[in-house]
Amino acid sequence: MSSNSFGKLLTVTTFGESHGPAIGCVVDGCPPGLEIAAEEFAHDLQRRATGKSRHTSARREADEVEILSGVYEGRTTGTPIALLIRNTDQRSKDYANIAQQFRPGHADYSYWQKYGIRDPRGGGRSSARETTMRVAAGVIAKKWLAQRYGVRVRGYLAQLGEIAPQGFDWNAVEDNPFFWPVAEQVPELESYMDALRKSGDSIGARVNVVADGVPAGWGEPIYGKLDGELAAALMSINAVKGVEIGDGFAAVTQKGTEHRDLMTPQGFLSNHAGGILGGIATGQQITASIVLKPTSSLRLPGQTVDAGGQPVEVVTTGRHDPCVGIRATPIAEAMMALVLMDQALRHRAQCGDVGQVPPRIPGDVRPGQADG
Amino acid sequence: MSSNSFGKLLTVTTFGESHGPAIGCVVDGCPPGLEIAAEEFAHDLQRRATGKSRHTSARREADEVEILSGVYEGRTTGTPIALLIRNTDQRSKDYANIAQQFRPGHADYSYWQKYGIRDPRGGGRSSARETTMRVAAGVIAKKWLAQRYGVRVRGYLAQLGEIAPQGFDWNAVEDNPFFWPVAEQVPELESYMDALRKSGDSIGARVNVVADGVPAGWGEPIYGKLDGELAAALMSINAVKGVEIGDGFAAVTQKGTEHRDLMTPQGFLSNHAGGILGGIATGQQITASIVLKPTSSLRLPGQTVDAGGQPVEVVTTGRHDPCVGIRATPIAEAMMALVLMDQALRHRAQCGDVGQVPPRIPGDVRPGQADG
Amino acid sequence: MSSNSFGKLLTVTTFGESHGPAIGCVVDGCPPGLEIAAEEFAHDLQRRATGKSRHTSARREADEVEILSGVYEGRTTGTPIALLIRNTDQRSKDYANIAQQFRPGHADYSYWQKYGIRDPRGGGRSSARETTMRVAAGVIAKKWLAQRYGVRVRGYLAQLGEIAPQGFDWNAVEDNPFFWPVAEQVPELESYMDALRKSGDSIGARVNVVADGVPAGWGEPIYGKLDGELAAALMSINAVKGVEIGDGFAAVTQKGTEHRDLMTPQGFLSNHAGGILGGIATGQQITASIVLKPTSSLRLPGQTVDAGGQPVEVVTTGRHDPCVGIRATPIAEAMMALVLMDQALRHRAQCGDVGQVPPRIPGDVRPGQADG
Amino acid sequence: MSSNSFGKLLTVTTFGESHGPAIGCVVDGCPPGLEIAAEEFAHDLQRRATGKSRHTSARREADEVEILSGVYEGRTTGTPIALLIRNTDQRSKDYANIAQQFRPGHADYSYWQKYGIRDPRGGGRSSARETTMRVAAGVIAKKWLAQRYGVRVRGYLAQLGEIAPQGFDWNAVEDNPFFWPVAEQVPELESYMDALRKSGDSIGARVNVVADGVPAGWGEPIYGKLDGELAAALMSINAVKGVEIGDGFAAVTQKGTEHRDLMTPQGFLSNHAGGILGGIATGQQITASIVLKPTSSLRLPGQTVDAGGQPVEVVTTGRHDPCVGIRATPIAEAMMALVLMDQALRHRAQCGDVGQVPPRIPGDVRPGQADG
Repeated sequence: MSSNSFGKLLTVTTFGESHGPAIGCVVDGCPPGLEIAAEEFAHDLQRRATGKSRHTSARREADEVEILSGVYEGRTTGTPIALLIRNTDQRSKDYANIAQQFRPGHADYSYWQKYGIRDPRGGGRSSARETTMRVAAGVIAKKWLAQRYGVRVRGYLAQLGEIAPQGFDWNAVEDNPFFWPVAEQVPELESYMDALRKSGDSIGARVNVVADGVPAGWGEPIYGKLDGELAAALMSINAVKGVEIGDGFAAVTQKGTEHRDLMTPQGFLSNHAGGILGGIATGQQITASIVLKPTSSLRLPGQTVDAGGQPVEVVTTGRHDPCVGIRATPIAEAMMALVLMDQALRHRAQCGDVGQVPPRIPGDVRPGQADG
Repeated sequence: MSSNSFGKLLTVTTFGESHGPAIGCVVDGCPPGLEIAAEEFAHDLQRRATGKSRHTSARREADEVEILSGVYEGRTTGTPIALLIRNTDQRSKDYANIAQQFRPGHADYSYWQKYGIRDPRGGGRSSARETTMRVAAGVIAKKWLAQRYGVRVRGYLAQLGEIAPQGFDWNAVEDNPFFWPVAEQVPELESYMDALRKSGDSIGARVNVVADGVPAGWGEPIYGKLDGELAAALMSINAVKGVEIGDGFAAVTQKGTEHRDLMTPQGFLSNHAGGILGGIATGQQITASIVLKPTSSLRLPGQTVDAGGQPVEVVTTGRHDPCVGIRATPIAEAMMALVLMDQALRHRAQCGDVGQVPPRIPGDVRPGQADG
Repeated sequence: MSSNSFGKLLTVTTFGESHGPAIGCVVDGCPPGLEIAAEEFAHDLQRRATGKSRHTSARREADEVEILSGVYEGRTTGTPIALLIRNTDQRSKDYANIAQQFRPGHADYSYWQKYGIRDPRGGGRSSARETTMRVAAGVIAKKWLAQRYGVRVRGYLAQLGEIAPQGFDWNAVEDNPFFWPVAEQVPELESYMDALRKSGDSIGARVNVVADGVPAGWGEPIYGKLDGELAAALMSINAVKGVEIGDGFAAVTQKGTEHRDLMTPQGFLSNHAGGILGGIATGQQITASIVLKPTSSLRLPGQTVDAGGQPVEVVTTGRHDPCVGIRATPIAEAMMALVLMDQALRHRAQCGDVGQVPPRIPGDVRPGQADG
Repeated sequence: MSSNSFGKLLTVTTFGESHGPAIGCVVDGCPPGLEIAAEEFAHDLQRRATGKSRHTSARREADEVEILSGVYEGRTTGTPIALLIRNTDQRSKDYANIAQQFRPGHADYSYWQKYGIRDPRGGGRSSARETTMRVAAGVIAKKWLAQRYGVRVRGYLAQLGEIAPQGFDWNAVEDNPFFWPVAEQVPELESYMDALRKSGDSIGARVNVVADGVPAGWGEPIYGKLDGELAAALMSINAVKGVEIGDGFAAVTQKGTEHRDLMTPQGFLSNHAGGILGGIATGQQITASIVLKPTSSLRLPGQTVDAGGQPVEVVTTGRHDPCVGIRATPIAEAMMALVLMDQALRHRAQCGDVGQVPPRIPGDVRPGQADG
């Protein structure tokens, strides 16, 4: 299968370069009958968009989605849904000076090593512009999951460099350009980012993403594990260097009695597992956390080599986010939603349908299960 | 594709339950002509084996591999290689009392929710016994990678609860039952484990795994990224709750100037990236780190429910490791080797062959590259 | 995906050489809860078995199936079902003389060209012995299709060289070693085969296979078409050189008014389409027809070359069927059943479940359809 | 994997409806460095185009290909190549009257049964308009195969109803609108088609497609067989009801001594096998033949039912070819080329590269083979 596709039953194939004529995707396997309109993509694309605030890069893209196929009279028909976005704010000359140089920490070098040829304009295929189409595809998955199973996928910025949230409030998250869960800290973040931008440097971040309402039983054993697929999906986001499920690396120092989630007829007493055991959902909240490295595209000079193997100093003058983690929240949500929808379809293929209300604890009746 | 298979060109399909008649795997896509004998599996299987020391579970399996197909006169023929191991030390009655109960923190519950039926003997399919076949398959991948490209994959225990290595020596790793890189600390580990075992509790751990000699260019963009596939492969190992590539979560607090790996004609000046940029190998050492949660199978009682939804207290009396991380090193190596071999085959399919000596820096000649 | 696997959700991976220690398969994706016992494989394996009558090859295999995994207390658990058959009647020395020669019309030569190495014993992996495992896997698919949807898959020999059936009676098919649908013609077939065997030559054949009760809607558009997948599955059977759906090649000379199947509220008036339109089942009987070439393994000498490129005359002295088509009926049934079960699972993943009674005509109620 | 995708390493994903805004495809896995320009698609698209002559449907599409991605400065970069064609000659109202009726012999009914919703405009996704993108993708495959391995794929109309070619000349094929290999018969075909069109009826046809220069060794065993994949690819073309490799159904009545292709140091003495043994190329010409049913879209009235299950008479007034087989030649070529390129990449992944000159007979040196 194409490495530009993912998903087994709900498949997403993306294409397009940062400064090519367009980017797009083909979403296949969506159940028929889902209402979807071009306008519905705007909200999440806007959340992800460059130029949303002064804290992200200055590229301004309309990100207008055209639905090319798979939707008839406002409803999905079961055939592939192709979405297209024209690139409008291309400034290829910004990148002319790096066409023959390899920016340290960037995919320029590894793409060149692999293919012997690369599109240097804005990172070409390796640009985070590709994630626009993940977010677009994720809109479909989020909607279907919500309508069909009441599943809700949400994320937030959980750390910005050394700054950690002092509290937590879902309501705050969408009210600031950082997806930060504590309104009071927003001014602090703004000062931090302003100073960082002035310095020419960048910073890492952590993003958390969770899903509520996932029915127990979604996921598959061994190599199709829900956490394994989440790990792949989240790690595939540009700049991500680590993925945790549940307690993640904190479990290194935990005792078994501390980590295991005890169960009662009223439900689990804790959720260290992040809602997944043996690769299969338990019915609890699914929780994942990722780290995004500080962007490598800096205007502070750095040692590197050119295509001829000669030493050069590189300075990146294009438009780049000083913290790519800020805009990663909707991307991480999209990836989790796409993985969940794919697993949902796979689950009902093998095990029948679980109905719309997820069971909470074993005693519950699970209609349709194990009927072959 | 089957969720009990992984890999695109080098595919591994495993089967078998912990206390069923046998476990096995089918390795397909291996190039023809590789010499392989049944005896060659013994070393890594022994490294992974239960019963290797008093610090791991007391189950004793011969783990004798029978090659059922794909090898003729000692060499692979290009057809599927089936490997079979009979289970010999089954004690199903150990598990009779938990057939109707769900051990907290264990896949018992989620499997039951998914399938409405489960094999309770030793965890059935969800048991870490399945990883035996990953290690067996990994033996083939390790050998091919070493012979064909000089790639070497190795791992070690990088943390045991609160204990971290005080130094590092590859030579120490294979000389103690913990895969610990500092010989002097082994007595401390032994005391710790003895006390832990007596307490009835278990502990988490961290395992690092690295690959040397990986040619720049292996890996694929977007959803076939080398780090994305490593994340999925490593997260699919039982008890793993997090995966890091390179600096991993440490990058949350790093600046861009700190994280980016500068390049010179003599090579990279650091390796925060873990040898992967944009999903593609840079020619540096590939580094990954995983966390293994403390095992949930404890003889200390815990609250749970039974299949009827009633509250019960569960005590697990079977044979279980107090630290599953100890035996995870060869498993993590196997998974990394399998991912690398698969990517190697995919790379030469699309881009031709890179030859046996990996290039270090752009100026190097890369024969066969970009010839279509 | 492995080329020794097929199916998307119900996957079958086979392994094993004709004269290796064993052959086997892994069937994954089967819904949980299906009752299955080792004895249930005997019937179809016996139908396919060599040595069933004097008209097929004299190799005598017990073909005893061992279930290695995926079944607990007589029911499938949803985990991979591994089936193993030990080869017992190996006579490798029969093939010693052809190890360095390429039998004309046989895969000896092409395997050698591909891999540069081959297992010459009985054709190794290219032997029709591999089809034993298809039949075994097909037993599971047939049973599930029958129980869950009332689908029945059956085949028969539709032509033996120049001899065509003079009539048709399903009841006759299983009462003679040829799967011939006209009891009165059996003596004629026996005489024909006796003479053929004496002559040392072989003959081609046609096998028809049909499925009744397939619900309208199974199948997928474009590259996942039901007829496209049947074509691949049937063409993959050893010696098959052509596949037809419905009227097949007869449609070359048909007019549109003759070919199109008119519809009435009571149902279709004909079935030229073979129950498939646009790759999707119409609810009518699915019909397919295949040609099996005459076997190339003859004791009549033939010109060929050896591994050194020198001309030689080859005589095949092993045990071979003079008409491989005779035993192909259960194999073709198995392949059709496996394709249908896979499509059934895929259909309910995307479109929900159609219930057990297939709709006949549009006015019918189709429960669960288009509910997303 | 998406059912709107095919190929394992060279993957093609198509999207778009007959009368939607656009059709397109994403071709992934193409080696880097291949020169390709938008103009290169014109030739084969023109060969396939509706409106090429009065003998095909009157729809007139510019079929202008826009390359959206994957090509930089005229060469492929190894990233996905997206191709887009805007639909310009949509006449949706032509189809308004059949939105609630099911044309007999058409996918209207089966799509409706599957999805419960369908785009009725010109057959929507089931329209042969989709094949435009196959032809476009095929242009890339043809070019790569020719440049890299000297492989050439060509087809011709081999029968039109009862009319069979009286001779054979490749030079004639491209000089008439029928792809007919005998120039002298073209007037006869024209008269036949004129009469047919007047009658309002349609006719079936046979198309042959062959590949020269395919290296021995391409193809894979068992379920990845070259002939199996050709069968799937060709059967997936609209209106195809049968596929033959080599002698195809003629083998039903052949003796083994007649069918087997004898070998000499100078090469094979015949090619009944169609260049494939055991699913793997022998180095001979690959030959395949397909039947295309007469189109079901007729202006002669036919009995059918409507969406309410009521009987109606349907008359199709849109623009339809009286013989869809005429335009199928470039489509069949494209499908064969795509299958071959995919197998070529897979072969060099597992077995190394065979070089550009295909070996003819065993004595030949095969560089790079079996080197692992």
